[in-house]
Amino acid sequence: MGMPGTLRRYRFDFQGGEHAMSSPSSCRTEVLSIGDELMFGHIVDTNCAWLAERLMGLGMPARHFQTVGDELEDIVAAFRLALSRADLVIATGGLGPTDDDLTMEALAKAAGRRLVHREEVLDQMSARLKRPKDQFTAANRKQAQLPEGAEVLRNDWGTAPGVRLPLEDGREVYLMPGVPREMKGLFDAWIEPRLRARSPAVVLYRYYHSFALPESVVGERLKDLMGAGLNPDVGTRVGGGIVSVRVVGRGARREEAEAALNGVDGRVREALGEFFFGTDDTTLAVATFQALRERNLKVALAESCTAGLVAALLGAVPGISACLIEGAVAYANEAKMRVCGVREGTLKAHGAVSAATAREMATGIRERSGADLAVSVTGIAGPDGGSPDKPVGLVHFAVATPGEVIDEERRFLGYDRASVRDRAAHTALDLLRRAARAWKG
Amino acid sequence: MGMPGTLRRYRFDFQGGEHAMSSPSSCRTEVLSIGDELMFGHIVDTNCAWLAERLMGLGMPARHFQTVGDELEDIVAAFRLALSRADLVIATGGLGPTDDDLTMEALAKAAGRRLVHREEVLDQMSARLKRPKDQFTAANRKQAQLPEGAEVLRNDWGTAPGVRLPLEDGREVYLMPGVPREMKGLFDAWIEPRLRARSPAVVLYRYYHSFALPESVVGERLKDLMGAGLNPDVGTRVGGGIVSVRVVGRGARREEAEAALNGVDGRVREALGEFFFGTDDTTLAVATFQALRERNLKVALAESCTAGLVAALLGAVPGISACLIEGAVAYANEAKMRVCGVREGTLKAHGAVSAATAREMATGIRERSGADLAVSVTGIAGPDGGSPDKPVGLVHFAVATPGEVIDEERRFLGYDRASVRDRAAHTALDLLRRAARAWKG
Repeated sequence: MGMPGTLRRYRFDFQGGEHAMSSPSSCRTEVLSIGDELMFGHIVDTNCAWLAERLMGLGMPARHFQTVGDELEDIVAAFRLALSRADLVIATGGLGPTDDDLTMEALAKAAGRRLVHREEVLDQMSARLKRPKDQFTAANRKQAQLPEGAEVLRNDWGTAPGVRLPLEDGREVYLMPGVPREMKGLFDAWIEPRLRARSPAVVLYRYYHSFALPESVVGERLKDLMGAGLNPDVGTRVGGGIVSVRVVGRGARREEAEAALNGVDGRVREALGEFFFGTDDTTLAVATFQALRERNLKVALAESCTAGLVAALLGAVPGISACLIEGAVAYANEAKMRVCGVREGTLKAHGAVSAATAREMATGIRERSGADLAVSVTGIAGPDGGSPDKPVGLVHFAVATPGEVIDEERRFLGYDRASVRDRAAHTALDLLRRAARAWKG
Repeated sequence: MGMPGTLRRYRFDFQGGEHAMSSPSSCRTEVLSIGDELMFGHIVDTNCAWLAERLMGLGMPARHFQTVGDELEDIVAAFRLALSRADLVIATGGLGPTDDDLTMEALAKAAGRRLVHREEVLDQMSARLKRPKDQFTAANRKQAQLPEGAEVLRNDWGTAPGVRLPLEDGREVYLMPGVPREMKGLFDAWIEPRLRARSPAVVLYRYYHSFALPESVVGERLKDLMGAGLNPDVGTRVGGGIVSVRVVGRGARREEAEAALNGVDGRVREALGEFFFGTDDTTLAVATFQALRERNLKVALAESCTAGLVAALLGAVPGISACLIEGAVAYANEAKMRVCGVREGTLKAHGAVSAATAREMATGIRERSGADLAVSVTGIAGPDGGSPDKPVGLVHFAVATPGEVIDEERRFLGYDRASVRDRAAHTALDLLRRAARAWKG
């Protein structure tokens, strides 16, 4: 399944289907995205997927998404349609100060409410912008026009307010700005607690991540937990070599939902075994950093085909400078020799892509840098450079510790250049993580 | 405007609005995305934005997007709604062999057509999978059930066929698999030519990319080209330090549209000047590679705060091994000294984040590696480590050539760690690109 760039396609074997999830609340949920920049394809709508996953976790999965541009009649029609079939409508975008920000007006029209001035919105904007209210323009003041009966949700991440509009029959509409940071801030602070209160059940979820373990093995090991309608609900999802187990626990109270989650915690960890690297937001780079940091280990890297990707992934983790001493991107053979101390004879006898070269890269960089641990990567990322003997996708790794050097070989066959590099870099991180965890100081 | 991770938010000053674009064809276009994985938030729908941009370029911008899960009734309702308000409906997803792939059946229902068996689909699948037809399962055979009157669009990138269904009043529905690679392949090969034929006007577009040039400057320089209703239509978009000028040319015939584009080519290139790095799909890394390759230059990198990101961006370009000799990720001061030859006195007197250190990093790695050119990066990516004197976001760069060393300072203030690193890495690439272009062999 080919995916562009940094995106991962997750397949999610959701046992029991949507019904099992939505039954606790029977809430029909719809998400609206508003903005010309979406219709013109200038931005990818990441808000939708983020909201969808959160709504799923709340037991009120979205059934429809709509996206429309900045035309008033289109936004009104979208709200009308949503209100005709959903109990909960969450809309993002079109709350700014300019003339083409029409979401508030459209919602008022669709819901048959007047727009009324809400001074508290200006107070909040004034406090946030550190500017007296009398300096506000007409455009700013427009942002204080809310549908009658709306609750103002304070935006601590930007100026446009969030809005909750309760309607008859318990239906609710929430409005948030389209800027992801503001949207997420508002949702977490104000909307999620209100939705939790709305839901008759508490729904909690937890992810357990593993690397390089086949999904079928995980599925086999957790088979008995994956039946339809069970609590907790257990499923897997896959992407970029990472298999994650998702556990969704439900209960009338938080303690019950937590108990449901905790009841399978040991089983899931056991099933993933040494392949398990973390829960929830923990990336493989973060897990690797944690393993190094706990043991106060210094690390060095020697990369050929990944060309800095391992270093860049680790470098994204705040605080990594305490552990990462040095990385060598040794593309040319000459660099492998000079920087990592690979012997010319090894390159001649085995080639740059070989276990022998990987071993000398790792030991060389470790010794020269004074690091405790070192990992090396050398392979053929493609699209050219492959041979029957050493095809595109062949990658050799080595991990050097004071006592020993271990080499590993992987074949990422049928992968494009970006995928070979990505998978190889993650494999290197995982080898490093395991070596750190196995460290005998 | 805060954006997560690797995503870029583009703002597009589209002069003249939607109307100017849609008037050539007056085609009302709707895009449908189908799949539970979207409703559950397990994947971000990148197809929508990609299609939206292509449709925009064809002069038939999308007016509505809908997304629904794998429930038959929801898909049927989505098609019915789309067909009630659009002339052109493009749907992705739900064409696979499994039971929850129901797009074909839903379209047949919504359009009032029977499903009929199309042997040619099995022939194509057989040829692609190199498997005789009699080995196909019932699930495979299901994929050959198409709405009556459909045109089969051969999928050379996967097994599920693309479909074009012409309806009364000139309305058309296109179906494609949701896998981005297959979707793009089918669209480019079969759908775009058909849409071009449908459009009474030929619409061509071209992007001109620049780095580190303020959008306001570009806007000022091209002001007279950016009026409403002009041909070509000229606008800008911005993201990650890259300002792109988009030119859309229209004409009754291809030559006319091309002439409209070419008529402003010189003006646009002149406006972007030395900041211009490429057109259309050319990334800054690719442009840098091209500049190096043309002059047969070897390059070395010395990175501190970007920690391999410059190397990784260059490493993503096929063929880069001809130019990139070596990269040093020198996080620790000790590594800066040992690997790049930075003097202890320099680090003590000026600190690791200083012009003096950047200069010694670049000259050191250049001399040791034997490269023609070298670039260095040292800065404070945050979130910690800043001071009033040297705040988070301060980055020093240097470029070393045989004759001279040039240093540069940038302050990416208010950026998060990922953004500082991303912007710094791109700045380093741009410095490298400029140095290569200015190269006097």
